[in-house]
Amino acid sequence: MATDFSILRRVQFSETDMAGIMHFANYFRMMEEVEHAFFRSVGLSVMMQHEGMHVGWPRVSATCEYFGPVRFEDELELKLRVIRVGEKSLNFEVDFLLAGKRVALGKITSVCCTLEGTGMRSIPIPPALREKLAGPQ
Amino acid sequence: MATDFSILRRVQFSETDMAGIMHFANYFRMMEEVEHAFFRSVGLSVMMQHEGMHVGWPRVSATCEYFGPVRFEDELELKLRVIRVGEKSLNFEVDFLLAGKRVALGKITSVCCTLEGTGMRSIPIPPALREKLAGPQ
Amino acid sequence: MATDFSILRRVQFSETDMAGIMHFANYFRMMEEVEHAFFRSVGLSVMMQHEGMHVGWPRVSATCEYFGPVRFEDELELKLRVIRVGEKSLNFEVDFLLAGKRVALGKITSVCCTLEGTGMRSIPIPPALREKLAGPQ
Amino acid sequence: MATDFSILRRVQFSETDMAGIMHFANYFRMMEEVEHAFFRSVGLSVMMQHEGMHVGWPRVSATCEYFGPVRFEDELELKLRVIRVGEKSLNFEVDFLLAGKRVALGKITSVCCTLEGTGMRSIPIPPALREKLAGPQ
Repeated sequence: MATDFSILRRVQFSETDMAGIMHFANYFRMMEEVEHAFFRSVGLSVMMQHEGMHVGWPRVSATCEYFGPVRFEDELELKLRVIRVGEKSLNFEVDFLLAGKRVALGKITSVCCTLEGTGMRSIPIPPALREKLAGPQ
Repeated sequence: MATDFSILRRVQFSETDMAGIMHFANYFRMMEEVEHAFFRSVGLSVMMQHEGMHVGWPRVSATCEYFGPVRFEDELELKLRVIRVGEKSLNFEVDFLLAGKRVALGKITSVCCTLEGTGMRSIPIPPALREKLAGPQ
Repeated sequence: MATDFSILRRVQFSETDMAGIMHFANYFRMMEEVEHAFFRSVGLSVMMQHEGMHVGWPRVSATCEYFGPVRFEDELELKLRVIRVGEKSLNFEVDFLLAGKRVALGKITSVCCTLEGTGMRSIPIPPALREKLAGPQ
Repeated sequence: MATDFSILRRVQFSETDMAGIMHFANYFRMMEEVEHAFFRSVGLSVMMQHEGMHVGWPRVSATCEYFGPVRFEDELELKLRVIRVGEKSLNFEVDFLLAGKRVALGKITSVCCTLEGTGMRSIPIPPALREKLAGPQ
């Protein structure tokens, strides 16, 4: 799988904490930002109607390893790699690059679900979505 | 290691997202809340002066597995277990319990550092802190 | 109107910023926390079914004046006063008290709405809700 | 005063709440984002060394009026207007425009301070900063 997708994202003041660095929970928001930008780049949305279903992608797991601090006004490159498009799940990694150097590595596994009222139920990833997420083979 | 520490924490409106459930990044803030409450419970703070040093605990890694959604006004029990107090690092897990049932499991590894201006440097965990974090043997 | 309702709320690490104080946007989350605790205290929720309608309270305006910084682990008293229950709108203020001294003052005006799918429409506050919000006369 | 400065900013998933719209507290983070982008555009930072002082801009007041909801993936234009550069304080407004229509209006008053350790003290805005903030006369 060769998908590789990047955005630039500046660290905002409200994302720092009193230690003077970006708070560790905000990396997860950034992973999601590049994920959603990737979805848009292939013509999808993480919250969309598809063949009469309301499709969403709740998380099964999320991980981040931190290799060094990032600070206010740092401009990060967030580089997404789709690792695996499973039957029902999506696996991707995000490199956090500062001046070309990896400062963090994130991993998320999501599962394709239909959202109905307050409930959600996992479903096989619809072929039309799978094709776009998996990219050119 | 037998440390086991719990707080109750209600899911706030601002922690939900348009899918109607708590946003996955907010679990990491909650892990930190119970961690810091644990530090306070043993007479410590995660940002403290100790023998002339400014000691903090930046993260090396953070993980969360999600077993089911939580919603606005749910009251969670956040149950912290210290897994390991290493030479320089601290390892703990947090169970997210809803009505006694585990809905998520978080893991954090932090490293003991001195913070000097904008820099940070890892140090062996001072004995006085180690003793309190490790709890009764 | 005599309603007066308080909660205690500790400033969390993730709510601080690199200036070492609570970030100014987080006061608005805290105003909402005491508001929702107040709703619960009178048997309501800000997101509830009422006579077949899904009732919510989107904001018309929100203001905060800041009189001094608050810091990590400060324990604030958040004191809510209902100022006015209008035909369709709710007006309340929140005092932020640190060791009994006012460090900030927040004001929010919300409007009672029915939420239908992605739309919302203002409605007169239902009498059963009005009575509980207005408190004993 | 003629300063007028804009950025485009997409509403992120984590900024929505269970009502399906952007949470009202997040407008304050966005006001700050355009403010800081404006500072950068004139060669300043909101956290900077200036003539041996550490200069910051804590808030005195912040207000937002909401005219209509904004939703996930909406692209907002955030348009900043400096209203007044006082002796010690800075006053600006931010229009939130969606497809050219104003959906919210924010106002912030900040005060120029030196930050020393955990303390802060208001100071007259240094002439070099004033000139840049006030723009061409």
